[in-house]
Amino acid sequence: MPSSDKFHDECGVVAIYSHPEAEKLAYLGLHALQHRGQESAGIVTSDGMALHVHKAMGLVADIFVEEVLAQLRGTLAIGHTRYSTAGDSALLNAQPIMVQSNKGMMALAHNGNLVNAQEIRGRLESQGSIFQTTSDTEVIVHLIALSREQTLPEAMADALRKVEGAFSLVMISPDRIFAARDPRGFRPLAMGRIPAQSGEKQDTIVFASETSAFDLIGATFERDVKPGELIVVGPEGVTSRLYSPPLAQSSCIFEHVYFSRPDSLVFGRAVQQSREELGRQLAREAPAEADIVVPVPDSGVTAAMGYAAESGIPFRFGLIRNHYIGRTFIEPRQTVRDFGVRLKLNPVRSLLEGKRVVLIDDSIVRGTTSRKIVRMVRSAGAKAVHMRVSCPPTISPCFYGVDTPSKKELIAANKSVEEIRQFIGADSLSYLSLEGMKKACGDGEKTTYCTACYTGSYPTNLVDVEEIQPATLKR
Amino acid sequence: MPSSDKFHDECGVVAIYSHPEAEKLAYLGLHALQHRGQESAGIVTSDGMALHVHKAMGLVADIFVEEVLAQLRGTLAIGHTRYSTAGDSALLNAQPIMVQSNKGMMALAHNGNLVNAQEIRGRLESQGSIFQTTSDTEVIVHLIALSREQTLPEAMADALRKVEGAFSLVMISPDRIFAARDPRGFRPLAMGRIPAQSGEKQDTIVFASETSAFDLIGATFERDVKPGELIVVGPEGVTSRLYSPPLAQSSCIFEHVYFSRPDSLVFGRAVQQSREELGRQLAREAPAEADIVVPVPDSGVTAAMGYAAESGIPFRFGLIRNHYIGRTFIEPRQTVRDFGVRLKLNPVRSLLEGKRVVLIDDSIVRGTTSRKIVRMVRSAGAKAVHMRVSCPPTISPCFYGVDTPSKKELIAANKSVEEIRQFIGADSLSYLSLEGMKKACGDGEKTTYCTACYTGSYPTNLVDVEEIQPATLKR
Amino acid sequence: MPSSDKFHDECGVVAIYSHPEAEKLAYLGLHALQHRGQESAGIVTSDGMALHVHKAMGLVADIFVEEVLAQLRGTLAIGHTRYSTAGDSALLNAQPIMVQSNKGMMALAHNGNLVNAQEIRGRLESQGSIFQTTSDTEVIVHLIALSREQTLPEAMADALRKVEGAFSLVMISPDRIFAARDPRGFRPLAMGRIPAQSGEKQDTIVFASETSAFDLIGATFERDVKPGELIVVGPEGVTSRLYSPPLAQSSCIFEHVYFSRPDSLVFGRAVQQSREELGRQLAREAPAEADIVVPVPDSGVTAAMGYAAESGIPFRFGLIRNHYIGRTFIEPRQTVRDFGVRLKLNPVRSLLEGKRVVLIDDSIVRGTTSRKIVRMVRSAGAKAVHMRVSCPPTISPCFYGVDTPSKKELIAANKSVEEIRQFIGADSLSYLSLEGMKKACGDGEKTTYCTACYTGSYPTNLVDVEEIQPATLKR
Amino acid sequence: MPSSDKFHDECGVVAIYSHPEAEKLAYLGLHALQHRGQESAGIVTSDGMALHVHKAMGLVADIFVEEVLAQLRGTLAIGHTRYSTAGDSALLNAQPIMVQSNKGMMALAHNGNLVNAQEIRGRLESQGSIFQTTSDTEVIVHLIALSREQTLPEAMADALRKVEGAFSLVMISPDRIFAARDPRGFRPLAMGRIPAQSGEKQDTIVFASETSAFDLIGATFERDVKPGELIVVGPEGVTSRLYSPPLAQSSCIFEHVYFSRPDSLVFGRAVQQSREELGRQLAREAPAEADIVVPVPDSGVTAAMGYAAESGIPFRFGLIRNHYIGRTFIEPRQTVRDFGVRLKLNPVRSLLEGKRVVLIDDSIVRGTTSRKIVRMVRSAGAKAVHMRVSCPPTISPCFYGVDTPSKKELIAANKSVEEIRQFIGADSLSYLSLEGMKKACGDGEKTTYCTACYTGSYPTNLVDVEEIQPATLKR
Repeated sequence: MPSSDKFHDECGVVAIYSHPEAEKLAYLGLHALQHRGQESAGIVTSDGMALHVHKAMGLVADIFVEEVLAQLRGTLAIGHTRYSTAGDSALLNAQPIMVQSNKGMMALAHNGNLVNAQEIRGRLESQGSIFQTTSDTEVIVHLIALSREQTLPEAMADALRKVEGAFSLVMISPDRIFAARDPRGFRPLAMGRIPAQSGEKQDTIVFASETSAFDLIGATFERDVKPGELIVVGPEGVTSRLYSPPLAQSSCIFEHVYFSRPDSLVFGRAVQQSREELGRQLAREAPAEADIVVPVPDSGVTAAMGYAAESGIPFRFGLIRNHYIGRTFIEPRQTVRDFGVRLKLNPVRSLLEGKRVVLIDDSIVRGTTSRKIVRMVRSAGAKAVHMRVSCPPTISPCFYGVDTPSKKELIAANKSVEEIRQFIGADSLSYLSLEGMKKACGDGEKTTYCTACYTGSYPTNLVDVEEIQPATLKR
Repeated sequence: MPSSDKFHDECGVVAIYSHPEAEKLAYLGLHALQHRGQESAGIVTSDGMALHVHKAMGLVADIFVEEVLAQLRGTLAIGHTRYSTAGDSALLNAQPIMVQSNKGMMALAHNGNLVNAQEIRGRLESQGSIFQTTSDTEVIVHLIALSREQTLPEAMADALRKVEGAFSLVMISPDRIFAARDPRGFRPLAMGRIPAQSGEKQDTIVFASETSAFDLIGATFERDVKPGELIVVGPEGVTSRLYSPPLAQSSCIFEHVYFSRPDSLVFGRAVQQSREELGRQLAREAPAEADIVVPVPDSGVTAAMGYAAESGIPFRFGLIRNHYIGRTFIEPRQTVRDFGVRLKLNPVRSLLEGKRVVLIDDSIVRGTTSRKIVRMVRSAGAKAVHMRVSCPPTISPCFYGVDTPSKKELIAANKSVEEIRQFIGADSLSYLSLEGMKKACGDGEKTTYCTACYTGSYPTNLVDVEEIQPATLKR
Repeated sequence: MPSSDKFHDECGVVAIYSHPEAEKLAYLGLHALQHRGQESAGIVTSDGMALHVHKAMGLVADIFVEEVLAQLRGTLAIGHTRYSTAGDSALLNAQPIMVQSNKGMMALAHNGNLVNAQEIRGRLESQGSIFQTTSDTEVIVHLIALSREQTLPEAMADALRKVEGAFSLVMISPDRIFAARDPRGFRPLAMGRIPAQSGEKQDTIVFASETSAFDLIGATFERDVKPGELIVVGPEGVTSRLYSPPLAQSSCIFEHVYFSRPDSLVFGRAVQQSREELGRQLAREAPAEADIVVPVPDSGVTAAMGYAAESGIPFRFGLIRNHYIGRTFIEPRQTVRDFGVRLKLNPVRSLLEGKRVVLIDDSIVRGTTSRKIVRMVRSAGAKAVHMRVSCPPTISPCFYGVDTPSKKELIAANKSVEEIRQFIGADSLSYLSLEGMKKACGDGEKTTYCTACYTGSYPTNLVDVEEIQPATLKR
Repeated sequence: MPSSDKFHDECGVVAIYSHPEAEKLAYLGLHALQHRGQESAGIVTSDGMALHVHKAMGLVADIFVEEVLAQLRGTLAIGHTRYSTAGDSALLNAQPIMVQSNKGMMALAHNGNLVNAQEIRGRLESQGSIFQTTSDTEVIVHLIALSREQTLPEAMADALRKVEGAFSLVMISPDRIFAARDPRGFRPLAMGRIPAQSGEKQDTIVFASETSAFDLIGATFERDVKPGELIVVGPEGVTSRLYSPPLAQSSCIFEHVYFSRPDSLVFGRAVQQSREELGRQLAREAPAEADIVVPVPDSGVTAAMGYAAESGIPFRFGLIRNHYIGRTFIEPRQTVRDFGVRLKLNPVRSLLEGKRVVLIDDSIVRGTTSRKIVRMVRSAGAKAVHMRVSCPPTISPCFYGVDTPSKKELIAANKSVEEIRQFIGADSLSYLSLEGMKKACGDGEKTTYCTACYTGSYPTNLVDVEEIQPATLKR
């Protein structure tokens, strides 16, 4: 997949309690969450006695071929799919992390990012603990092992009280599945159910980052794991505890703007609905004199439809996305202009020629891709290009599980909207307002949102951020 | 790629005359034509002295990695991408076909299907010719070699006069590129141009099945190769001859309905425009009492937008397509209902629930996939499902380059529309009329269309069809 | 496999008549002949109705994995393994060559080299025949198809009478296996038998280039195919005809010196026996004042043992061969001396130190490898290195199926023995005499040998050699 | 590599201090040690600031391709190649193990096996430590991190004093290389030197399990790391300390009998010399009335030559080994007798027919392979087969780094020599005596040997052995 000028989520997680083919359900669930991370994937299963693991670089469907799944046969399973920066240690950090400890065997998969992991890690190292990954997730398993609590659920609750930041977690022991969310509810985690088939004793309980994973495995959405909640599923059934009082909720609004699949329910709300409203609101706030509304596919499509519906300007697929993108592409030396973008997107001259175009995208990161797209649309004959973005300018990095470039690479952190317009070469440029975005996503209804990347106002302390990153550990 | 219940085209072709990186332009052109055939691909280049070939099973971007392209360095190139039935001999039939003959070395790539190839082949075999592929294309190179004409252009014209059926061809010799279409113009073939860069003597002339290939390599569309025309590009420049008087034109209308990319100009007409008109015409002919219009993605999208625009019923992406589809998928034994379809499509409950849905697709082949989709839409809460198809019922196989199932598998050849409706479980079902389809695609303007698969009335004799297929030659 | 400074054979062939798992026997047979060609391999099977083919680049065991063999299920089979020069057309020339003709389907596998193929090819091309490979083998199938004989056996006999040179052939039609050798018997071809198991009607008849292939599949050696003989195995049983009177025999002596496996019977004689005799004869002709006899492994081992036994000087494995050689090796920039040779061979200092060494090899091609080996043996402490070669100096290229470098690269064609000694840095150098070699290999007993590469006196006309090679056809 | 009925060593290690291409030297060193472990391999390098790691399943040459080595560029390096039982966690246990701790980053590679690892591990777990591998090596890094010593050398010495068993270790920190052997000197570890090239300040110091690794990288053997010694190489030069007084030496005699390459110096003695003496001694102790001496290749060759020399019976390569063995082999259903053995070995009928054969092997593990070989030799015509084994009967498992089957699978632990003879079907069977083996290997000269697998008398306590293996942790 050619690196794109987009923000990246860092993970999707899935968990299955008690199904004769738990490993296959985990694999299908991960497949449905593939968009949340395409770099590596892993599954850990339990056959009731021991845990079995397989992790590798690549896409879910390429990693978990028949013979690999055969070796993972089990009735309990958790899975993880991950995006991360490339590098020699990438496999090292693949999840789930599986360990043996005084609490027995366990494996843990984490979506999110801790903000006090470095601090805790420093403290643990000074006491003689060793770390084998560079992942913040490893501190959680250390804390569980070091907890004085005797049972795994209590030890886990104990550990979760010590970490700060964003975490939607699933954990597996030989006989139980655990699922927990941080007290602020940054990242989604949903619980679903597959009714017991004849001959089975118990319903299958499943967890996943997004409900679209349930659809593929025939599970029904039941409810979200609550912020501050730890759910344990075992022979005793489903038990829930609040390991921490929930704090002011700060669910990641970017899940609705861009990350999640439109067919998912996230934080109790249909993503599709938010996305269409984002477009409608954008049309109200930032109208344009134009002949057609054109999305930057695929992620801008729903917002563009909302914009078109609200504005009455016809929607057109003026940019066609090529879905046969291989890993690396060989470019002629005598470069085709905007080659990288052209490989993925092709303008439809018959639609664009002579037209004033409203171009809808869901974010501008560095601005370089937007510039190429605007230029490409113009060269296909558009008379005017009005860029509209279905969220506010992104001015601050995320520390809660989204891979954002540093502040100096974020164009909106360094340029005014007018300067960005000039940079990308659009005739006009507008972003959605903060209030407009929150309204469109139903802020205050089912949840309230974290908008730190748009405001720079973070809902947690940022312990690690001040610290110098460990230079000796190459990521 | 999971086999889908769709018609398949059999090829895309591309040719490049004189560019310092002809092999890379051919490769990028094939990539842009990947949708026309995903089974195998091949490129033959000339460095002015000799031809070099590489053919393999798989996708263009997987086959032509850097080191393979390095061995193909040349200034002239042709390429081919192919869909065909699986089988042990698949690579055998990959194109281009390269041969040595009394006319020198040449290689040929063919989109289409000959209808008198078996007859000619039988005759040639009886004279002692040997055949190394099961492809109809091989007879053309035999005819060229056996022609009494002395020059390659004349020998090629001679050969093309002897074959009947559908062929858009490109051919390469060490110093020339040839491009030709059959006299009825069944399949598309466009000519484009890349202006000479400073330091180069000549413009680069390119040919491709669809103009979208030109966009990626920075070429401008110039004109279509005409039915009955043979174009030769060589040191002497571009020369054209009509090797045969053009016959009544019968361009494949299904290129507009489904095959071609929406961003292509095909038979001189924007595919996007036809497809939207198909949807609008369908709305006029077959309105529905409904709340939303939902396409079966990706191919049904544009027609659905036309239907929505014409009918005033809102368009919604009620089915989400998963683009991370690997080769084979492992299914739980205790099958998830409609698993195969669910892997590719997921219904958006929040959009579908309680709604009366107009579902737009561009064809129904066997009906089995449509049945699953209708059931899936219903199970996501739709109150009613009105299926609308943007072309008439497909009742007859194609013999001109489209891979269609046999008549007994084509549902519309065996059931009435009402029976099909019952089979797929829709509340109502309507197809576009023949006249409506022809009108939407501008029949009689730039070309007239072959509609044999909808009417059973074929524009050519069907010599081979009566014959028994050679049983000893396993395909 | 790193290219080595050795002569290469070009093929091994195998054929199976009537076995329920013919494809597996062919595959195992090819595996046993892997040393005769490591570049590509192919198998064609018949299920009684149609032929099935699979050919690919690589080693037999890597190509014919379970699922590939499953698609080749048949009761008749032929196979081919090939060495050839690398290049983009390598797969093109992989054998067997399968064609459809007026004689039905057939596929042919060839070990050897024709010396009048270019002449015939030119004639056939001028009559309009097309050639799809650059292999001399393709002319044979053309000749079969063009023959006026009605039956395949007669047409094959007819064709074989028209070609000149070295050929040991196996051919398959849907219901028969054919095996033939040229009238001079250049290359080996043996016939064997697997007794019918209970429930089977007929013994299984097998053919292979070397009898070691029989050992692996449980077959017993029966006899060699005779020079000028064509054997047909079909429902009627085994029939033999002499399509041509046998000419003066000229079996390739280098099969005994180097090519064939020591555990094979070749031309009716145990290779092991010849090889030991070569060493004994060398000891008689070229004694040395030395402490130990050391072979260049693996091929020099048996001759070295013969030398040691005859001379009474102790044999020692002073050079250890590394069998874990991968495809390409990455060398430090600051080169280790004689790195390429060291990867394959390592001197045993404890054996060599202070010793006068007789080093036995079976050929010196360019001399560069020998030079490195001599230097390496010295640097491990040898006091003196006496090089002995178990055949005469190679002064002339082979045109009968052995890949030899051109005359100007053959060191012995350009330098005297004394000059070669200086070049490789040995204290003394002796080759075996022509008479000694012939005697050691039993010349005149079971067969007489071709020694053209040692004498420059060729047993056939060399029609093609005078001709200019076709420049347009890149090999 | 088909699993063979042989004992397996578990590792080879290599370390490089300060070379501009340390990663390439490590890779070549591992290649030379490939025979010590073919399952996985890993390299960790330092560029002076940070450590970089790559570990994977497979052979060294397949894992460390050019682009992988490019990412490992460094001046310090350690490497490890490993044999282990297959299983889903195999990659998990690949070495080196790299960790971050209060002593900084470090990575460790281990050849050998600890006998109190489980005990220590249990204690550490009860204190809250977590374990991510099932390897005994992980306890060492925990002990280093938990040591109260402040410097890495002291902490390492401290840790090594706490573990018991067999360990030859190399360790890397960002600026130093460490090498140590256990106080009994079970496993080999040699130090070598590459003289500084012009422009470099310092000689390169290298460590490797066997000296054959030095030959390939142009290093000279300097001395063995001593039992109980810890060598640190850093900017300050080479420093040595005895972290523990050396105990009675118990070097693994099986390194000389079978494991090590014959071209290596191991425990200060040439392996080739030991192996020849083993054969000579065997001839003295267990003569046979026979016509030829035949080794089971490759490992039995040198002993067979010694036997032949001492006995005066001629040596013959009566069994040919096939070196083109791929991963898995497909067997015909109607099995060829002794198929698995035949794939690897083929008898030379011309040598064996009518002969009384002394067959020399270096061990009999389960006896099943020997039985097949004896049968195969007989079926090739041998009149009598006298099996001679160049060491005593193996009656007890190894706990010091050799993968031996359990006692109940070791044929000599359960049957008398006469019973074994009957089982394998030999006419006579003799093993070398314990005293004979020790004498042949120079026991008491440079070292004294561990012979526990022949005697059941172990030189250490066997702490873990009594314990139940952790059942929850699947290996």
